[in-house]
Amino acid sequence: MSASVLLLACPDRPGIVAAVSGVIAAHGANVLDAQQHSDEVDGRFYQRIAFLPPSGAPSTAISDDLARLAPAFDLDWSIRPLGMRPRVVILASRPPHALADLLVRARTHDLDIDVVAVMSDRPDHAPLVEALGIAYEHHPIADRAAQERTLAAALRARAPDLVVLARYMRVLPGWLVAQWAGRMINIHHSFLPAFIGAEPYRQAHDRGVKIIGATAHYVTEALDAGPIIEQDVVAVTHRDSPQSLARRGRDLETIVLARAVRAHIEHRVLISGPRTIVFT
Amino acid sequence: MSASVLLLACPDRPGIVAAVSGVIAAHGANVLDAQQHSDEVDGRFYQRIAFLPPSGAPSTAISDDLARLAPAFDLDWSIRPLGMRPRVVILASRPPHALADLLVRARTHDLDIDVVAVMSDRPDHAPLVEALGIAYEHHPIADRAAQERTLAAALRARAPDLVVLARYMRVLPGWLVAQWAGRMINIHHSFLPAFIGAEPYRQAHDRGVKIIGATAHYVTEALDAGPIIEQDVVAVTHRDSPQSLARRGRDLETIVLARAVRAHIEHRVLISGPRTIVFT
Amino acid sequence: MSASVLLLACPDRPGIVAAVSGVIAAHGANVLDAQQHSDEVDGRFYQRIAFLPPSGAPSTAISDDLARLAPAFDLDWSIRPLGMRPRVVILASRPPHALADLLVRARTHDLDIDVVAVMSDRPDHAPLVEALGIAYEHHPIADRAAQERTLAAALRARAPDLVVLARYMRVLPGWLVAQWAGRMINIHHSFLPAFIGAEPYRQAHDRGVKIIGATAHYVTEALDAGPIIEQDVVAVTHRDSPQSLARRGRDLETIVLARAVRAHIEHRVLISGPRTIVFT
Amino acid sequence: MSASVLLLACPDRPGIVAAVSGVIAAHGANVLDAQQHSDEVDGRFYQRIAFLPPSGAPSTAISDDLARLAPAFDLDWSIRPLGMRPRVVILASRPPHALADLLVRARTHDLDIDVVAVMSDRPDHAPLVEALGIAYEHHPIADRAAQERTLAAALRARAPDLVVLARYMRVLPGWLVAQWAGRMINIHHSFLPAFIGAEPYRQAHDRGVKIIGATAHYVTEALDAGPIIEQDVVAVTHRDSPQSLARRGRDLETIVLARAVRAHIEHRVLISGPRTIVFT
Repeated sequence: MSASVLLLACPDRPGIVAAVSGVIAAHGANVLDAQQHSDEVDGRFYQRIAFLPPSGAPSTAISDDLARLAPAFDLDWSIRPLGMRPRVVILASRPPHALADLLVRARTHDLDIDVVAVMSDRPDHAPLVEALGIAYEHHPIADRAAQERTLAAALRARAPDLVVLARYMRVLPGWLVAQWAGRMINIHHSFLPAFIGAEPYRQAHDRGVKIIGATAHYVTEALDAGPIIEQDVVAVTHRDSPQSLARRGRDLETIVLARAVRAHIEHRVLISGPRTIVFT
Repeated sequence: MSASVLLLACPDRPGIVAAVSGVIAAHGANVLDAQQHSDEVDGRFYQRIAFLPPSGAPSTAISDDLARLAPAFDLDWSIRPLGMRPRVVILASRPPHALADLLVRARTHDLDIDVVAVMSDRPDHAPLVEALGIAYEHHPIADRAAQERTLAAALRARAPDLVVLARYMRVLPGWLVAQWAGRMINIHHSFLPAFIGAEPYRQAHDRGVKIIGATAHYVTEALDAGPIIEQDVVAVTHRDSPQSLARRGRDLETIVLARAVRAHIEHRVLISGPRTIVFT
Repeated sequence: MSASVLLLACPDRPGIVAAVSGVIAAHGANVLDAQQHSDEVDGRFYQRIAFLPPSGAPSTAISDDLARLAPAFDLDWSIRPLGMRPRVVILASRPPHALADLLVRARTHDLDIDVVAVMSDRPDHAPLVEALGIAYEHHPIADRAAQERTLAAALRARAPDLVVLARYMRVLPGWLVAQWAGRMINIHHSFLPAFIGAEPYRQAHDRGVKIIGATAHYVTEALDAGPIIEQDVVAVTHRDSPQSLARRGRDLETIVLARAVRAHIEHRVLISGPRTIVFT
Repeated sequence: MSASVLLLACPDRPGIVAAVSGVIAAHGANVLDAQQHSDEVDGRFYQRIAFLPPSGAPSTAISDDLARLAPAFDLDWSIRPLGMRPRVVILASRPPHALADLLVRARTHDLDIDVVAVMSDRPDHAPLVEALGIAYEHHPIADRAAQERTLAAALRARAPDLVVLARYMRVLPGWLVAQWAGRMINIHHSFLPAFIGAEPYRQAHDRGVKIIGATAHYVTEALDAGPIIEQDVVAVTHRDSPQSLARRGRDLETIVLARAVRAHIEHRVLISGPRTIVFT
């Protein structure tokens, strides 16, 4: 039997760990990893337990017990399988690097995802994407509202577990974003909250920063303001032009996005209001 | 009542977490933080639980229950107080930076330690150390074996909780090191295991590395081979001479050493053979 | 004879390097290091040449020739001595770490500066500063305008080459800042331009960033908007509270500030509008 | 006319810069970037000048003058074109990530190289490589000496400007390596000189390091001992198994290798005995 992950959040209160680990132990499950966090800010307790269910046991035994436990602790919980190759749709505009990197990671099983389609407002990436045996949907922007409706329908039709914006340069409408809350990840090419919006490398150059960054976050209605999953940076100098910043930033963007996707599909991320808990 | 830390290690087996957290919960202690690790290599389970004992409870209640639990799980455990300002002796030779940094951190309460003495094979640091109101012991090296005996006696006399080698340039004899096993931390000015022994910056320059490092580790009889607690690095270039590498390295050494001392005094480090578990 | 640094800036045009290096070579000076930068944005050429004047030569020989060359290339130039232990005044408020770190670096000759006084709006640091043999001036804030005038007079009286704001928590008035343009360095405890103003660690925590930073910059009238000299960052997690962010940030602040001071006193920094050229 | 790079090395002596920049200026060439290094260790001077030759000038004019200048300064020099899409052969064994990354960078013009063939001791990568329109040569290892001769002949037949070992797991014989001296780059999956040879991630795990690295270097006869071009590292913890170290290391390896290839094809790397000068 393959491993599962129990994610839970609840008001922080003595006895939770004993109660939950008691359920896991009572069924003879083998705990592979357990991490927890008591948040001082929101007063809540968060936990991730990766476990191997006992062979032969009915798969719902642990769930049933947790369901019984939930009201007493006001548990918000779910059990999710690991290694199920989640279905992913990638959205990308002109820059190809983050898209290509994800496709290669999927192909070489570095990321255990099933890329069911790539959607773009441009035709450019069709040859590469199709050479790798993946469906390419070109949704051109003539009428913006129409394109958004088409794109939303296309997403629903593909029914992905996760939507990844790999340098998709269009701002998606709030109603569409809301349909994928907690299941849509964007890469922004700056160290947020610095340089929100367009042309962050140009902004970074104008400000004369000595470090540039990239930020992967869940998409929310507010532009570049969703819960941050992963960030990284690289040192730059006065020698860097906006163009060379963009080039250096490409490697950052691909890596930060890949790390965020990995954390998400391994069920390591819990959203806590405007912030995330990311278990390692 | 102030917080305590329970550290435990035992063979990995289902039910440990439930049993131990059951004890903590039964006494109404408030768990501030809990981290655990199941090591695939040695098959052991490690845990650190920071908790606030319930007010009014006899301080030994939890200990008594853990003692009862220990045989069943073959527990290796201890409960240690937090915030007790451990007594520290610092050993230093010629370079002053790591020593001065620790003294300043103690003085400004960045590190909550009580530096009871500085010992050196040289007289140089006496003015600074004494200006900061700390005892300075000069143990010059005329007869090496005699100096080692004197130093060992001086250490025993001060009875520190921790001995920190802040660029002490003498190799200590095995019998002395053995007396402080797990309580003596050294900073080595390279990214171990690269550049063991003398003049690591010279070695790094000769090899033409593009990054240099520093390593804090528990001292064992084998030179620069003890369990690593903390490492960090900084980028260098062809422009760096052995001298400029040494200068850049100073900041690394002070920070890496300070982080290791902090982890140790907060009871975050468990030794697992040649390696460490460092809870964050 | 000791080394000097030629700093120059001028409109970028063919022949500058040949002309300037011709002057240096004609006098038999030994070039220790030369770095240059052609800025695409402002179209200017920047150069730093560290050289050892020939022994026996009149010290003004190179200067005289450069002065003759200057009009043809519209040169903005200066020759500055290295290793002159510039006079430094440090301003600090409550947090002691950046102040203490600079004092230790001066004391151990890690930074070759002469700290002529520490000035503060608070009395706290007097014991430490005076134990290290340095003048401590307490300029309390009762009447803000009066304190600013007193502080300005005190600064002028000390006539430092450089003023360092080592976590000075008061916003200085524009007229005072203007007197020290290009000679006053501040450390801000965030990765600017993120989290300008008060309580950046609180802001960082609220936004849920996964990395925090520190920024050393020349002080200008606009708050936290002066030309950036140096920045660095450290990874943080959901486990960090605003308090632990502040603790982690302390090491960043001291190191970033020390690096900026070093670059400044070694004449490695040229200001180019809102940005800096920092030769390595 | 497209840009060129002048690389030169010679004994360090006053007047070199004036003489060389005089030649460049005399022909009206536009200097885009110039970097130099006086090496204290070997007493030599190194310089890289990127320049745009004047339009209409005979392409050999600058070369002729440099040739005349060379004997007086004992110059070792060459002028190389930029942006010529050098021919590259990639060698790869089982792990696909570094290979796939280079192919994607070539395809998306992140790296301006022409991958003329991929050669492997295994058949695995043929589908991906051929899907991207690139020749795949499978040179299986039955008789080792025979395979080495076949591989050497295949390399000569492709006549690449650069050979990249993107996790090629076979040690190449000295005679073959010698044919590509200074034109063959390897990625080693450790922070050299730590963990030379096989299974560096296993070695890193056993030693309990807190940071792992990757190193790109020119291949020489001595195993993993060639001049280092680029290194980078990533923090790890006690939670990492040899397998997870290997996974984390993959991203490091691809990025470090890509940076080294970029530096090489932009003529930024000069070899100085066992070390490199890498202009930024």
